[in-house]
Amino acid sequence: MARLTGQMLIGSEHVTGTGEAITAVDPRTGERLAPEYRYGGDAEVDRACALAEEAFDAYRATGPRERAALLESVAGRLDDQAGELVQRAASETGLPAARLTGEVARTSGQLRLFASDLRAAPSGATARYGANPPEGAGLAGGTAVSVDPAGEGVPEIRQGRVPLGPVAVFGASNFPLAFSVAGGDTAAALAAGCPVIVKAHDAHPGTCELAGRAVAEAVREAGLPGGVFSMLYGDGPTLGIALVTDPRVQAVGFTGSRKAGLAIAGAAAARPRPIPVYTEMSSVNPVFLLPDALAERPAGLAEEYVGSVTLGAGQFCTNPGLVFAVGGPGLDAFLDAAASAIEADPGAPMLTPGIARAYAEGVERLERRPGVEILARGRAPEAAAGCRAALAAVDAGDFGPDLQEEVFGACSLVVRCGDLDEAIGLARGLEGQLTATIHGGGEAAERLLPVLERLAGRILWGGWPTGVRVGHAMVHGGPYPATSDARTTSVGSLAVERFQRPIAYQGVPR
Amino acid sequence: MARLTGQMLIGSEHVTGTGEAITAVDPRTGERLAPEYRYGGDAEVDRACALAEEAFDAYRATGPRERAALLESVAGRLDDQAGELVQRAASETGLPAARLTGEVARTSGQLRLFASDLRAAPSGATARYGANPPEGAGLAGGTAVSVDPAGEGVPEIRQGRVPLGPVAVFGASNFPLAFSVAGGDTAAALAAGCPVIVKAHDAHPGTCELAGRAVAEAVREAGLPGGVFSMLYGDGPTLGIALVTDPRVQAVGFTGSRKAGLAIAGAAAARPRPIPVYTEMSSVNPVFLLPDALAERPAGLAEEYVGSVTLGAGQFCTNPGLVFAVGGPGLDAFLDAAASAIEADPGAPMLTPGIARAYAEGVERLERRPGVEILARGRAPEAAAGCRAALAAVDAGDFGPDLQEEVFGACSLVVRCGDLDEAIGLARGLEGQLTATIHGGGEAAERLLPVLERLAGRILWGGWPTGVRVGHAMVHGGPYPATSDARTTSVGSLAVERFQRPIAYQGVPR
Repeated sequence: MARLTGQMLIGSEHVTGTGEAITAVDPRTGERLAPEYRYGGDAEVDRACALAEEAFDAYRATGPRERAALLESVAGRLDDQAGELVQRAASETGLPAARLTGEVARTSGQLRLFASDLRAAPSGATARYGANPPEGAGLAGGTAVSVDPAGEGVPEIRQGRVPLGPVAVFGASNFPLAFSVAGGDTAAALAAGCPVIVKAHDAHPGTCELAGRAVAEAVREAGLPGGVFSMLYGDGPTLGIALVTDPRVQAVGFTGSRKAGLAIAGAAAARPRPIPVYTEMSSVNPVFLLPDALAERPAGLAEEYVGSVTLGAGQFCTNPGLVFAVGGPGLDAFLDAAASAIEADPGAPMLTPGIARAYAEGVERLERRPGVEILARGRAPEAAAGCRAALAAVDAGDFGPDLQEEVFGACSLVVRCGDLDEAIGLARGLEGQLTATIHGGGEAAERLLPVLERLAGRILWGGWPTGVRVGHAMVHGGPYPATSDARTTSVGSLAVERFQRPIAYQGVPR
Repeated sequence: MARLTGQMLIGSEHVTGTGEAITAVDPRTGERLAPEYRYGGDAEVDRACALAEEAFDAYRATGPRERAALLESVAGRLDDQAGELVQRAASETGLPAARLTGEVARTSGQLRLFASDLRAAPSGATARYGANPPEGAGLAGGTAVSVDPAGEGVPEIRQGRVPLGPVAVFGASNFPLAFSVAGGDTAAALAAGCPVIVKAHDAHPGTCELAGRAVAEAVREAGLPGGVFSMLYGDGPTLGIALVTDPRVQAVGFTGSRKAGLAIAGAAAARPRPIPVYTEMSSVNPVFLLPDALAERPAGLAEEYVGSVTLGAGQFCTNPGLVFAVGGPGLDAFLDAAASAIEADPGAPMLTPGIARAYAEGVERLERRPGVEILARGRAPEAAAGCRAALAAVDAGDFGPDLQEEVFGACSLVVRCGDLDEAIGLARGLEGQLTATIHGGGEAAERLLPVLERLAGRILWGGWPTGVRVGHAMVHGGPYPATSDARTTSVGSLAVERFQRPIAYQGVPR
């Protein structure tokens, strides 16, 4: 195993911070994991931003094929050290090795998806990069999207997309690879032509170091300036905000808590020159169980539901935290089967002691909430920072806005609705969500669909929201406050547009 | 001529305001034009927003072809009453009838461009609306963009775009038709599936009334709910801000001054639930004259330059207000010829007395600015609110950030640069712009191009920035503070995306 050094990566240099020291903690055992990671501060932010700005001109001048090669090189390095990544990530996050092995493949696959788009091979690519990427054709990094031909006294106009500039990326605790250092935002930004500065996540600093080195090595081997990629360790409220407010940073990608996401979005909005900020914050992913579905297979739905709720200790942004079940035959059988399945859940370690504490407090809040009934609890896990599953229920009449607050973990609330109108009424009052799911069909589903189209970034007809496929059509985003900007996605190839803007070239030679 | 009533249009109702009364003024004569328009207030905003929200579900459920027919119907009505529109607009704005006749055609053409995209006929449309718009296919207004096919245990995912909701539109003084009631933002929002609430412009209320009635009649004839379109008269700081902060409004389009644009963007950012805001504010549209171009045809360039500066009394967002001329043979000849052309300019009425005052003050500010030399003034026009053209020059060493402030009108400043490096250094320090133009070629142009790609939304190679072609490839937008959001355009078919967001349909039946 490569020796971890505890160092930041600033451009091509390995730098030891001089601030507070943190260590990762194995949530299964509570054990502290070497090495120490010392925080950077303003000087490191300034240096990383200066190098990113310096590198931007050279990097955006690369053609789509060079960027594709860079992404493929990062992907290959991640795959090559999958074993080490999985081992370190498992000890830092408590996530099972099988899940993390899949996540490495997802992360390298994601990089390769953007690479294949850049190589303009398949259908989905052409719309975003133009059928004939004008590589080296006088457009410094711009790629043609659509063309208005020249006419009588009117020059040709080509529409391209140009990269915005250095991008700050903040990873999530719950995907130490796919939403972290070499995750979706980094892949999209590099594909777009933007240098990247990552703030490494405190909960998996060693995994960050391994992935960060893979990116930095790929940058070096491609002969690109080191400033194309930096990774800093630091305190969110100070180093994180310094990064977001640095005038050289032109966009921000973040996945995490609502509190941190709002702080980042707020700091960015207060800049003298505002920039695009994409914070993915929280979602309870409402699921609507219609009478026909409940009547047809209550036990099957319950089993799938609890499987989705407890997957990865419920630590997914798309965890189904809220279910609107429309009363009728099958509802009681559904609840009974779900309660039994929750009770049988063995529990699992959570990502960090802090997340486990917040989860326990969230379930306690539900327990104390008038009208809410705890239907079942899972078994108490042995892990130091464990998640004990919880299933709660409430009558529609007792539902209120407080109950749409996310309890991050394997906890879900079923809202018993008297009829479809009651469910639709509550759905109209919900906050923006990443996903919304319908089980059932017929006229009821058709009435519900347009309501959910206003609510969420992804609509599922059957199935469960956990499991976000990486592809051209995926939208992992949604109305505020699920994200700060619903016009985009953090998963899938459309994400490249987060870090570009359209530009028109009028009469510019090809 | 249709009798003007001075009434607002709220849904399908004609409503007389109860607030302050305004009248249009003919800037050529200072004459007040009947009728009076009385401002609305909070009650009218509330009513228009409630009707728009009510109409949204029915309107977004329309298929692309129904929306196309609506836009075509509006376009036909504008063309049919072109004579009246031109006559009223000419008296309200002082713009020449020929220009306004062209603007009616531009406005109806713009509506038809979105309509043709909706009908998915030509190439540019398919990327945005999908090759097979799934009209009536279970997606309530969503239109497929890309598809990830179903696989082993994985459902099909289709990416569509859904409309955001009611849109508030604020038109500009300088395009009483193309950037006003039935202008680009309204066309894009209606194409996207969003109801529209327009705040009519105080400087051309009668033109607004005529155009507003055309839209309202088209909505009525299509059998759509009246709330699809409303138009209010009102005070910007009160009614305008009430509209922007109404929770039912989901996006804002604005073209106008930086002061008003920043007020709107600020009010929207302070909403509990922020929304996309597209304010186009100001731009001086830098032009770079390289030594080869200046040496080759100094007089020709000067003639074109002054033509662009004085067109429409310089009242274009794309007016070339700043020229960086790289010294060498030809620069003096260029300046001499430009000065002569400015001196020969007869002047023209400006849009309003206030705009004429601000213009005169802007030129006076330049006159007093140390280092700036007024090279030539045009003739004083006879109009009550006239624009007397002005050409100024400054040495690069005396240039400062204050000199990039827009003087709205026929005024332009030439910056004499010693060499290309000096021009590039100044270009790097400029604020975001709508356009940037290069005259010249060779290595110098190639060095300049990437700098301008960071600066502006449209790059011209030769030509002059006034005259914005409506098409699929146009980008009329640019980095802050030219606009509040560079990821979009206010002219051309890409503008439809301002008012939509992507959505993924997972396993949803076709």
